[in-house]
Amino acid sequence: MRPSDKAGIYRAGGRIAPLALSLGDPAGIGPELICAAWAAREADRLPPFFAVGGFELLQQAARMRDLDIPIQQITYPSEAADCFAQALPVLTGVDGKYRPGIPEPEGARLALHSLEQATALAKSGEASAVVTGPIAKSLLAEVGFVHAGQTEFVANACGIAAEDAVMMLAGPQLRTVPLTVHCALAEVPGRITQELLCRRTRIVHRAMQRDFGLPAPRIAIAALNPHAGENGRMGLEEQQTISPAIATLRAEGIDVTGPHPADSLFAPHARDGYDVAIAMYHDQALVPIKALDFDAGVNMTLGLPIVRTSPDHGTAFDIAARGKAHAGATVAAISLAGEAALRRAEQSLA
Amino acid sequence: MRPSDKAGIYRAGGRIAPLALSLGDPAGIGPELICAAWAAREADRLPPFFAVGGFELLQQAARMRDLDIPIQQITYPSEAADCFAQALPVLTGVDGKYRPGIPEPEGARLALHSLEQATALAKSGEASAVVTGPIAKSLLAEVGFVHAGQTEFVANACGIAAEDAVMMLAGPQLRTVPLTVHCALAEVPGRITQELLCRRTRIVHRAMQRDFGLPAPRIAIAALNPHAGENGRMGLEEQQTISPAIATLRAEGIDVTGPHPADSLFAPHARDGYDVAIAMYHDQALVPIKALDFDAGVNMTLGLPIVRTSPDHGTAFDIAARGKAHAGATVAAISLAGEAALRRAEQSLA
Repeated sequence: MRPSDKAGIYRAGGRIAPLALSLGDPAGIGPELICAAWAAREADRLPPFFAVGGFELLQQAARMRDLDIPIQQITYPSEAADCFAQALPVLTGVDGKYRPGIPEPEGARLALHSLEQATALAKSGEASAVVTGPIAKSLLAEVGFVHAGQTEFVANACGIAAEDAVMMLAGPQLRTVPLTVHCALAEVPGRITQELLCRRTRIVHRAMQRDFGLPAPRIAIAALNPHAGENGRMGLEEQQTISPAIATLRAEGIDVTGPHPADSLFAPHARDGYDVAIAMYHDQALVPIKALDFDAGVNMTLGLPIVRTSPDHGTAFDIAARGKAHAGATVAAISLAGEAALRRAEQSLA
Repeated sequence: MRPSDKAGIYRAGGRIAPLALSLGDPAGIGPELICAAWAAREADRLPPFFAVGGFELLQQAARMRDLDIPIQQITYPSEAADCFAQALPVLTGVDGKYRPGIPEPEGARLALHSLEQATALAKSGEASAVVTGPIAKSLLAEVGFVHAGQTEFVANACGIAAEDAVMMLAGPQLRTVPLTVHCALAEVPGRITQELLCRRTRIVHRAMQRDFGLPAPRIAIAALNPHAGENGRMGLEEQQTISPAIATLRAEGIDVTGPHPADSLFAPHARDGYDVAIAMYHDQALVPIKALDFDAGVNMTLGLPIVRTSPDHGTAFDIAARGKAHAGATVAAISLAGEAALRRAEQSLA
C-alpha cells in the first residue's frame, strides 16, 4: 500500500472548516476519546475540530480520564478554528449526564441528536467532515433510529442509496473494502454479482482519487474461494462472476487485478502491490485489518458528498472511564477525515 | 498465545533420532531451502536432520544459491547425528537433475520417492520426524499420486483416516486450525457439524499437550458469521452447531471458549488469550497467519503417530534458484518438528 501524499496536505493546512465530532453513546468510550484526541492535537498534527454537544458531559469524561484540559463552548462551528489551540471547542446544544458503563435510552437519544447535528453541519459546509463516535445500534433502535447503522444514516441524510455508500477500513498497513457486509456467511455467494462488484469498485476508484490523492489507484480484488477456486475445483464464482467483472472494469481503464487468493493477498509483500483491497465478505476484510492495525483502524464511508470517518471500534461500555480505551483510532479517524477534506477543498479551488 | 516451554526441550537435546527432510519438487525452492536451513543450523539451534536423497541435486542447488557448504552422503539415518555439525547429511538413494523453474514429471516422481522414504523412516523410528518440502499436486497427480496433498498421504501411510489428520498453521504470533479446508466457501456452512468440531478439537487438545508441552491448552473457537451471528440475526450456525459443541467439549474438561467473532479473535490483545484458535474455514485461518507470520509459517499435521511439519508455502517455481526464497518457514518447520519429537521422546521415557 502506498501512503497518500500527506506533504501537500499539510502545506494546505488551515484552509478548511473545522471537523464535527459526534459524541457517540455517552455511556461508552466516545466522549473520553474526543478529549484524548484533543490532548494529542499537537503531537498528531490534527486539524481543528469541535464536539457536537456534551459540554458538561465532556468535562466529566476528561476528569475521569485524568485529563486536565480546558473545554470551551462555542455557538458557531467557525469559532472552533480560533480557540482550538487553547481549548477543546464544544458546540452548544445537546448535553446530558455522564454515566459511563450504563447505557440507557436517554444517552442513545443524546448520541442520535449529536449525530444528526454533526451530519447536518457537514452537509451545509460549516464543518468540513463528520467523524462519528461509536453508538449502540440496538439501543438506538429503541429510541426510533430506523437505519442499520451510522453509515446508512449518513448516506440517507445525503440522499445517497445505502448500496452506494461504501464502507472502507483503513489503517497504517492496509486499506480494505468488504463487498458484502452484514449478512450470514451462507448468503455471501448469492449476493456477489458482477453488477455489485463493478458498481462498488468504481466508487472506490473515484474515492481513492478524490480523497486519497492517488491519480491511478491500484485496486486488488480478493477471491471468494480458497486458492481462488483452483480453476473451478473449489467453486465457480471466480470464473463466472469475479473475473468477468474485473475484465469490465479494466476495459474502463481502472487498474484492477485479481481474483487473488485471499490468504496471499493480505501477506506483507503482497500489500505493497495495491492501494486498496476489495474483499468479498465482512470477515475477509475485517480479520486482516484488525490483526494488523487494531488500534488505528478507521471506518470511512466512500461515495458520499461529505467526508465521513469513524474509529473502527464499538462503544466498549465495559471499559468506559477506566483509562483503558486507546485513542489511536479516533486520532486516525480525525486525521484521515482532515486529509480528505483538504483534498476536496483543493480540488474545488483548482 | 503462550509459547511452549522451549527451555526444557533444549536441555533434552541430542536424545532424538535425526529428522528426515523430503526434497519437495526439485524444480521448486525446496532443495535450496534445505541447504539454507543447514547453513543456519547453529544460529537457529536446529536439531540434526538429513535430506532424503538428492546428493547431486543439492550440491547444484547450494552452488546456485551461493552457499559454499559441504554435503555428505550417508547410508543410514543414524549417521546424520555425527556428521551434522560438519556437513549436510544426505541419505543415498533417489537423485536427479536440478532444473530450477522447470517442473517436469521426472522431478515429481523424485519428490514422491523422497516423501515416501522420509515418511517410512519416521514411521520406523529411524527418523524422529518428517519435514516435507513443497510439492506441486497437479504434477504429482500425473505420475500416479492419488492423495489430495501431502497431509493426506502421510495420514494414509500411518493408517489414520484423512479426517483425523488435522492441519494446524503455526507461526510466532498465532497457531490456528481450519475446521474445513479445501472446499468452496458455499459448502462451508453445510460441512460444519457438532461431531466434526468436537472430534477435531479433541485431536487439537491432545496435540497441544503432547507436542507443545501445554498441560491445559486454551482453545478459542471462531464464529462462522460476522459478529458471531449477532444472536441469530446473521446466521444460526453459532446457536445450533458451534455453541452446543463447545458445551460438549467444556463438559469433558477441555478449556474451550467461543464462538468468538473472527475479526476480534485474531486482534493482538485477543491472541494473548488462547494457545490455538480453531477457524471454521480455510481463509479464516490462513488470512491472519499469512498476514502476521508470512515468512515463518509452519504447517503441522496433528493427530498422527509420527511428527510431521512442512513450511507453509508452495514450490514457487518462479523464484527457484534466484536467491530470493526465504528460509524462515523451513527453519521454523525443522525447529517445531524437533521440539515436538523431543517432547514425545521425553514422554515415552517418563
